[in-house]
Amino acid sequence: ATDSERLWQSLMEMARPGATPKGGVNRQALTDLDRQARDLFIEWCRAEGCSIRVDSIGNIFARRPGTDPNAAVVMTGSHLDTQPTGGKFDGCYGVMAGLEVIRTLNRHDIQTRAPLEVVAWTNEEGCRFAPCMMGSGVFTGQLSEHEMLHQTDTDGVSVADALDAIGYRGSDQVEREGIKAYFECHIEQGPILEDRETTIGVVIGALGQKWFDLTLTGQEAHAGPTPMSLRKDALLGAAEITQAINTIAMRHPPHGRGTVGVLQLHPGSRNVIPGQVKMTIDMRHFDAETLAQMAEELQQAVTDSCQRHGLSAELTPAADFAPEHFAESCVSAVRQAAERLGTSHLDIVSGAGHDAIFMGRIAPAGMIFVPCENGISHNEIENAAATDLHTGCNVLLYAMLEQAGL
Amino acid sequence: ATDSERLWQSLMEMARPGATPKGGVNRQALTDLDRQARDLFIEWCRAEGCSIRVDSIGNIFARRPGTDPNAAVVMTGSHLDTQPTGGKFDGCYGVMAGLEVIRTLNRHDIQTRAPLEVVAWTNEEGCRFAPCMMGSGVFTGQLSEHEMLHQTDTDGVSVADALDAIGYRGSDQVEREGIKAYFECHIEQGPILEDRETTIGVVIGALGQKWFDLTLTGQEAHAGPTPMSLRKDALLGAAEITQAINTIAMRHPPHGRGTVGVLQLHPGSRNVIPGQVKMTIDMRHFDAETLAQMAEELQQAVTDSCQRHGLSAELTPAADFAPEHFAESCVSAVRQAAERLGTSHLDIVSGAGHDAIFMGRIAPAGMIFVPCENGISHNEIENAAATDLHTGCNVLLYAMLEQAGL
Ligand SMILES: NC(=O)NCCC(=O)O
Ligand SMILES: NC(=O)NCCC(=O)O
Repeated sequence: ATDSERLWQSLMEMARPGATPKGGVNRQALTDLDRQARDLFIEWCRAEGCSIRVDSIGNIFARRPGTDPNAAVVMTGSHLDTQPTGGKFDGCYGVMAGLEVIRTLNRHDIQTRAPLEVVAWTNEEGCRFAPCMMGSGVFTGQLSEHEMLHQTDTDGVSVADALDAIGYRGSDQVEREGIKAYFECHIEQGPILEDRETTIGVVIGALGQKWFDLTLTGQEAHAGPTPMSLRKDALLGAAEITQAINTIAMRHPPHGRGTVGVLQLHPGSRNVIPGQVKMTIDMRHFDAETLAQMAEELQQAVTDSCQRHGLSAELTPAADFAPEHFAESCVSAVRQAAERLGTSHLDIVSGAGHDAIFMGRIAPAGMIFVPCENGISHNEIENAAATDLHTGCNVLLYAMLEQAGL
Repeated sequence: ATDSERLWQSLMEMARPGATPKGGVNRQALTDLDRQARDLFIEWCRAEGCSIRVDSIGNIFARRPGTDPNAAVVMTGSHLDTQPTGGKFDGCYGVMAGLEVIRTLNRHDIQTRAPLEVVAWTNEEGCRFAPCMMGSGVFTGQLSEHEMLHQTDTDGVSVADALDAIGYRGSDQVEREGIKAYFECHIEQGPILEDRETTIGVVIGALGQKWFDLTLTGQEAHAGPTPMSLRKDALLGAAEITQAINTIAMRHPPHGRGTVGVLQLHPGSRNVIPGQVKMTIDMRHFDAETLAQMAEELQQAVTDSCQRHGLSAELTPAADFAPEHFAESCVSAVRQAAERLGTSHLDIVSGAGHDAIFMGRIAPAGMIFVPCENGISHNEIENAAATDLHTGCNVLLYAMLEQAGL
């Protein structure tokens, strides 16, 4: 089995570049802090005898050869970049767990038939450069390499220039065909495992996502002299639609999600009736048809509210990801590994996007979730128990061995 | 009667300092643009033979003597400062109408028994320095002169220093006792007169106001992995409370008002459930008891929503003005003037705060409203018809003459 202490130590060391006073990590993609983390990762992989390749979008592939030169590779990985208010585990855990698998095999002198490869994907978080999951998106052909290299941050720096600046614009051609399996360990980023007192989430797939931008326009007017009956208060529409989104998601349990995360009022003055509201809508479901129906219900709610409050609306799609159903081969490899280890587990659907989801489009993929404290992530107080992280890493080891063969 | 053309010309000339490309005026209190407007006003008043006094908060009093040295003064006025996105009429109309009354009397060589006085109050809008109606508040003893002089703008400049900088920190003692009447012409800033196709609003009083700040705290969490049933979404509470505020106001027609003008989400990210919402609440009513009851209903709505959504709340008062009932002597002077002129009129309650409301606390006061286009003010597109402004000015003339005597 893997070494709990060594895994924890690696996580703590990897949390240093960009460490924040509150115990979190602020290491945004393609910054010099990201370079430090990448350099460290490569140093550790080289020490384990791995060969390193870096592709044109900066994804790092560390390979441990197998005994059969014709065997298809078994991959694992995640990302080293963080949110501005990130924690120590989101992403980093998946990369360190992969490294720990290789270290364990090296210490025990175990050869696998298939080669193993640990990947650190570029810019999963998408904070500095949109969109998220950029590296895996380009690798899997889901995102255009050309377009992604031209994306810029708020200072106008392009991805291409940022890669050059930190020396990670690679030239290795890494083949995307013939991948046997891709696994990814990740903290759950949600409350379900903790709520059910379960250590391992066997991730069977991921929710589809439909994101929208909505602008509601009424008439701004003075809050005092304008009678209630003569108002066109855009916020009243927004309030109704926010509640409708919640109701729609609740109508489609357990996988329905509906969230308004951004809501901006214009002009935003105490004694002025809001003339315009801009808001974002995030809807998710595991079933593509249901998700489409939820979007229709949203459209209807917007129409109804506009009519009731004399508003006009502009509803535009901002993102659209189909639900992902992971390959049975990988899902059962994870489930069986958990059973063999005798650890508590339950099938779970990832509510969030992950690099594994893009990988699932070109190869069998699976994920291993472990609980995180109070389900909190993207927050400096993000935390996870060393024993859970260790158990997840052991599940990864067993699942990879099962796929790679001895 | 007054001279429509001359009144309009004065309004257009007075709109030059701070004129914006879109036809509005940005002339915030105690700026050099405000000084230019003040200088112009004083120049025009001196040309009419008025004596000028400036008090310690910068209010300007232009007096035309009466024939009876013992007669109590009849005052009128309003303010020359504007919102950052102000129009040409809000405030300025009341000052120019007062000047037009004096010009008319001079042209027709009419002496009044009581002296007449036109006031330009300092900082009615309260944008650069809080609170609004500062000049009339200090004059009437409703606001502390000492505190007001120490209020600062966002650059840290105090009212005292700003007054010094433009040369308007006066030293004249202007008596607040023994005022016979105060009248103020103002655009309605609301849609009622236009809606009822009426020229003159006989203002019988003003709505009481209770302002609150509300902070709702839930738990921020990732929008994807967090099931609906395990959320503490502060925005759902805010949406419910926003609707409750609307319902409460609607339950108390025709004077009930309830407005949420500011609503800020934390952290305000597309895929994060809002953990905290800060919002402002503005409630108004003409009846003090009803207004108190509305505030209680608000408190209940907050408690209910918090319970339903697992939130905590902090509701704090931000302002509290009692309803104002204007003195019958002034109200009927305005109403009779409108009748004598044969113009359409209706009794109306001011939904907004005005300098006249503070004046009403120390003297008989009344207001004359004229329609403004689409009820819009605090907006560069604010507009009013020259004929309506002229009619309002004639009503002011008659009302002042009635109170001042010939
Ligand atoms: N894992 C993660 O935070 N992904 C971001 C995209 C999403 O909202 O699902
Ligand atoms: N007249 C005016 O805009 N007053 C501002 C205070 C209020 O909201 O009533």
